[in-house]
This record gives sequence, C-alpha cells and structure tokens, in this order.
Amino acid sequence: MLAEIVAIGSEITSGAKLDTNSQWLSQQLSDLGIPTGFHTSIADDLEANVACLRLAVERADVVIVSGGLGPTLDDLTRIALATVINRPLVLDSDALTTIEEMFRKRGRVMSDRNRIQAEFPEGSTPLANPIGTAPGIWLEIPRSGKSPCLVAALPGVPSELKRMFEEQVVPRLPATGEVIRRYRIHCYGCGESQADELLGDLTARGRDPEIGITAHEATITLRIEARGKSEAECQAKIDEAKGAVWSRLWKFAYGVEDEELETVVLRTLAHYGWTLGVADCATGGWLARALGALEAEYPGRALVVTGVEEKVAGVLLADLEDDIHEHRVGRLAAATREHLRVNYALATEPYPDLTPDEIAQSRLRIRVAVAGPDGILVDSLAIGGNPAILPARIGKTALDLLRRELPSRLQ
Amino acid sequence: MLAEIVAIGSEITSGAKLDTNSQWLSQQLSDLGIPTGFHTSIADDLEANVACLRLAVERADVVIVSGGLGPTLDDLTRIALATVINRPLVLDSDALTTIEEMFRKRGRVMSDRNRIQAEFPEGSTPLANPIGTAPGIWLEIPRSGKSPCLVAALPGVPSELKRMFEEQVVPRLPATGEVIRRYRIHCYGCGESQADELLGDLTARGRDPEIGITAHEATITLRIEARGKSEAECQAKIDEAKGAVWSRLWKFAYGVEDEELETVVLRTLAHYGWTLGVADCATGGWLARALGALEAEYPGRALVVTGVEEKVAGVLLADLEDDIHEHRVGRLAAATREHLRVNYALATEPYPDLTPDEIAQSRLRIRVAVAGPDGILVDSLAIGGNPAILPARIGKTALDLLRRELPSRLQ
Repeated sequence: MLAEIVAIGSEITSGAKLDTNSQWLSQQLSDLGIPTGFHTSIADDLEANVACLRLAVERADVVIVSGGLGPTLDDLTRIALATVINRPLVLDSDALTTIEEMFRKRGRVMSDRNRIQAEFPEGSTPLANPIGTAPGIWLEIPRSGKSPCLVAALPGVPSELKRMFEEQVVPRLPATGEVIRRYRIHCYGCGESQADELLGDLTARGRDPEIGITAHEATITLRIEARGKSEAECQAKIDEAKGAVWSRLWKFAYGVEDEELETVVLRTLAHYGWTLGVADCATGGWLARALGALEAEYPGRALVVTGVEEKVAGVLLADLEDDIHEHRVGRLAAATREHLRVNYALATEPYPDLTPDEIAQSRLRIRVAVAGPDGILVDSLAIGGNPAILPARIGKTALDLLRRELPSRLQ
Repeated sequence: MLAEIVAIGSEITSGAKLDTNSQWLSQQLSDLGIPTGFHTSIADDLEANVACLRLAVERADVVIVSGGLGPTLDDLTRIALATVINRPLVLDSDALTTIEEMFRKRGRVMSDRNRIQAEFPEGSTPLANPIGTAPGIWLEIPRSGKSPCLVAALPGVPSELKRMFEEQVVPRLPATGEVIRRYRIHCYGCGESQADELLGDLTARGRDPEIGITAHEATITLRIEARGKSEAECQAKIDEAKGAVWSRLWKFAYGVEDEELETVVLRTLAHYGWTLGVADCATGGWLARALGALEAEYPGRALVVTGVEEKVAGVLLADLEDDIHEHRVGRLAAATREHLRVNYALATEPYPDLTPDEIAQSRLRIRVAVAGPDGILVDSLAIGGNPAILPARIGKTALDLLRRELPSRLQ
C-alpha cells in the first residue's frame, strides 16, 4: 500500500506559505504502516487539480488531500473530486445545518458562499469538522484490476486537519498488519561518504531494515526504518541494525534520536555535578545558542562568554596578551576554567575576517581547546567548505572534543 | 511560462525532513515573473523519479529539481535525468578535478563513491558548486510543438541550492517582462490587530500594491508587494506605500527588510564606536544568539554573559547579593556596564521556574533594564501568553528599550 499527499492552493505553490501538513500526514501514515511515495502541491487551477488527482488515484492506494475546501471561488477541491469520479455535486442538508449552527454559535452571519461547503460529490461521505466551517470528504474510488483508492479531503488549517485525520480518517483506513518503527544514530567527525563506505552494504537499497544517511551541519545521521508485523519484530530488527552500525561507526557515533552533541555533554556534566565555561571567539553565538537552548533542562550548567578575542581577553584574560599563538587557545581554555571556577572549559580560536568565498577556499585551520582537571586538549579543523555551516562545525568540534574527554559515553 | 519544483528524497516523503527549498525556489521564480504550478516530492525510487520528471517536463516549462545529487546509493537524480533524456551518464573530468581539489583542501580523503558526482547525463551542462562536493546539472530538453523544457538539478543542502540558483540558474532563465518587488517594514511594541487598525484600508485585499501583515515572535511585519513592467514602476508604488505605512506606524517601526532589532542596535553602537554588555538571566540564550549572529558584521561590539542569576552574580556581581528586588535589574545593568567597561549594558531579570501552562496563564511581569551614560532605564513585560516566544519577547523588549535610548533612529 502506498500513499500520496496532495496539498492544494496557490499560496503554497507561489511560496507565500510553507506546507507543513504534508510532512505531518506522512509521519502519521508511516506509523500506521503506510509509506508515502509522493507529495504534490498544486495551484488553484481546476484542470491541474483534476489531472493531479487522477494521477494520484492511479499511482497511490491512499490519497490525502489538504486545502481547497473553503467557501471562496479559489476553493476547487470539491468540484475537482466530483470531476474525477464523474458525478455531480449534491447538497447535504445535515452538513448545511451544522455549518449554519457553527455560524450562529460564533455570532456571525453565514454568507451565501458558505452553502457550497455543504455540497459533496455524489456517493461520497461528509467528514464532520468539529472546529471549523469546512467539512471534509471521504471517497472510495473503484479501480480496474486493483482495490479501490481511498481518498480523504481535509481542510488546510493544520489544527482542523490534524484532528479530523485522527478522529475520522484513521478509523477508515484498513489495518495494514504492518508496523513501522524508526531509530536514529548521530555521528560527528566523519563525512557522509566516509560513513557510507564504513557501513558498506548496510545502506544498500531494499535491505530490511533500511538504513539511510543524511547530513545536517556536519552531523551525519543514520536513519534505521524497520517494518514488521509487530512492534517487537521491528524492535528486534532495529536492535540488530543498531549493533551493526555501532560496530562500524563507534568512533564517530555520539548520540541517538533527538540527542545533539550539546545534550550529551550537558547530561554527562549534570550527572557528575560538573559545570562548563565557554570562551567563544569563533562561532558567532552558535555555542551560546546551542547550550542556551538547554538552560531550562540543565540550569546553570554552562556559562558562555562570547565576543572577539580582545574582548574576552580584556575581561577575563588580561595576562595572555603576549602568549605565543600556538598555545593561545589552550591557555584561553585554562584561564577560562580558572576564572569562571568551572570544572571544564572550552575555548575557540578567533580567525581572520574572511568573505564567504574566502572561507570556502581557505586552507586555514583553527583550533579549539578543552581544559579540565586532567589538563588541556587541543584539536583543529579546516575552515574551508560551506561557510554557512562553519559556526556549527567549529562549535561541534569543540563539543565533541569535550565529549571524548568526559568519562561517560553513550547511554 | 510555468514552473515545477521537484524535491527528491525519501526523507521528505516519509516526513523525516521538512522541505523548505520548494517554497524558497517558488518565491525566487515569482520575483522573476515565473509562476510555479506544481511542487512534487518523490521518494528515492528510480521508476517513480523517472515518471515524475517526465511528467514535469511535459507540463512545466522550467523544472527545478532539488536533492538526490549526493554520493550515496540513494542518490538517483543523475541516473533519473539520464533515463528521461535516454542518454548515458558520462564522466566530466573537470568536475572530477574540482571535487578532488575540494577534498584535498578540506584535508580529507575522497572516497571512490564521490566519483559518481562527476558523472552527468550526456549533453547536459555541469553547474559548479563553489561550497560543496555535489555539482548541479543544467539540461534543455526538446519537446515536440513546444519550446524546450529548461531543467536545473541542484543539491538539497539549502545554502548550496540558494547560491547555485542565484549564480547559475537565474542567468540561464529567459526574461518574462513582468517584475515583482517586495518591501518589508518591521514594528515592535504593538499587536497585530492594533497595527491593522492603525493601517485602516491600506491592508484591504486587491489594493495595488498589496500590503499584508504577519507576526513572528511579537515582531509585526508589513509586507508590501508591487507588480509592474519595470523595477522603477514597482519602486514608485513601494515608495508611496512606505510613506503611508510610515505615517501611521512610526511609533513602532524600527527597521526594514532583513533588519532585526539587534541589527539596528548594533549598527548604531558601531556608528558611534560604542560597546554593549549584556547580563542575561531570562532569555535562555536568545540574546546571546541574536547578538552573536551579528558578531562577524560588528565584531567585538557586544559581550554577552548568560546563565542563571547566581552564576552571573557569582562571576560579575558578587556585591549585589542583598540588593532589594525592585532595583535589582537596574543595578545589575549598571554593575555590568562598570564591570565589563562598556558604554551601554542590558540586563534581564530572572523569573521563577514555571511550566509552559503556568507561563501561558501567568500575570507576572518581569523587568529589563538599560544602563548608559545618562543613567538607568527600566521597562517590564507581562510573561503571560505563548510560552514558546517568551524568550524572544523578553530579549526584544530589552533591545527595543536600548534602541529608543540610542541617539540615532532609522536610516
């Protein structure tokens, strides 16, 4: 069984609005064992709507349509669906009563245009909308040589769509007897192709469970997706795949699921009752933001001082002025540790003011350092590459250096 | 002329990742006078990719493909495009040299897998990727009875996609004769409906130029959109609308286009050669992130100290311990100004540890303060409301208090 999500509206195809419904619907269907093969967004054009819906009914077994159910001339989903099944639109008096009632309750006058929201393709089932004026539509469209295609049209307002999907579409979808479960493992310090090579045939297509690789700001994520008849079966497959991934990428793997490097670091620090100080001259606020986002979960665990080196030095480290360059970032970390009276300190080295193009081409390496009870560790990274992710790369390199130094590893 | 955006990757159709490229690409095409009729997202399946691309080439005149150009077995865009035009993939030795060079510069070993990124459908043009390893592909596909379909395939990494679209796709697209221009004015300190009321009929639908209101984290933005035959015609319309908006919202308007409150504040400080210190006990890193993001543009201008009050106090302000509560935030700002030897200092007051529901219902007000050469200013805000945007509201209230205190206003 394969699903297609169709989002209708020129506000989406024009870029005025970001469609988030399709992502949410795919996640829900996936949990029910129904994979989504296609997302389609169409402008408010009847011919295009009819053609896209015909194609969806042909290539997918479940089609979830969002949007185009409002009262305006732009709203074409009702008439497009009626055209696809070659039936007229007919007024549903129960639906009309409900819409009239909704307007009365909100103390508003119902416009004549809203009557059209009570019209449905003949033979379809209205789906009640408990929190808005647009009812949805449920259709089972016969197909030659195949099971009927199940079509649900829902309003585009996310809160209405979500509630109606859960309450009225899910119970109408057939049980697939299949369960899908996912698991993510995150790595830092290796490239996407290096990870792919280390994993060998584990990422081959058609493998069960499937293992995909994605990269985001230099973090490499392995996404395991297991299908089975039960949650236990999926879990067993995931456990096996986890072991296989682990044995090949243990050097780089730092966390799972929603864990970021900073989560792992702060959790470990909190476990031991330790604190962290950061003198950041390079990430332009990235470290402050990453650690600051966890302030509520691990209050007071990390104290971040940002600013160019002169500032940090001026305030914290006046004695470092004539330090030789190579040891500077290590000394900065050590001085930060002492000055802020923390258990561990991170420091990042400032780098020259470069344009994005100069960064992309640069062969410069910059240093990050950790100072802890056992001394000072320094690592470095090449700044060349995508300038947009450089702050994240520097911050993550610093956090990863600290993570490796801390006693506990993955849970 | 009609465009279609095709996003490739199971991480999108499965819901694991939200596609934001399609929205951005539609906006860019719209600026060039090319409307987008369709967005399509496809799972990593060769047959589906080929069918969708064939359909796109048939129904759209410009097709922008994102994703599927990486080095892994999942990356099928190259082979799908070759299949659509019925040509083999051929190695481009220049592209290979560039990719090898990119790896050398980053000090990494190029894996064999990456060679495939130098393979292109025969007859296509490689599009150089200045900041990543995946080159793009440009293709003009002949169609019977119609002009050729223009196809650009770009990497899915947003920063790479955006740069390559602007630098290499835009110059290859035909001129349309219609121009669309936009302009944004940002306000802080008024609500969306208050702004709407002050603007009166300026926001009526169908007006030319159109003026829309959006709200994001308590910043109110007026979006002016003008259409015309030339940039000058659009500019004249925008200038008139700007004047009208300005005369009604001057009390709240602080910036235009990409300017945030922190941009305006730091630009003013930089203009006078002044510095800012921040003792932040309330925004959980929001102020550090906002000011840190401008570190490259205004280096050394702002020094931010984050952490719970005890930490900030312990390090900077040991003398404040028995201060009375009402004056505490003002004293904190003044002490920060003195301690960090800056021209201005901001301070935010800590508030009790509350659950999101408690925040939403709370009637508590918290204080922010500015200390400058002319003394101390204190403002306050109610913390009740959407808890997700509270850090931004506190940070913006503090920045806006400082902005009003600084001599220069809008450019």
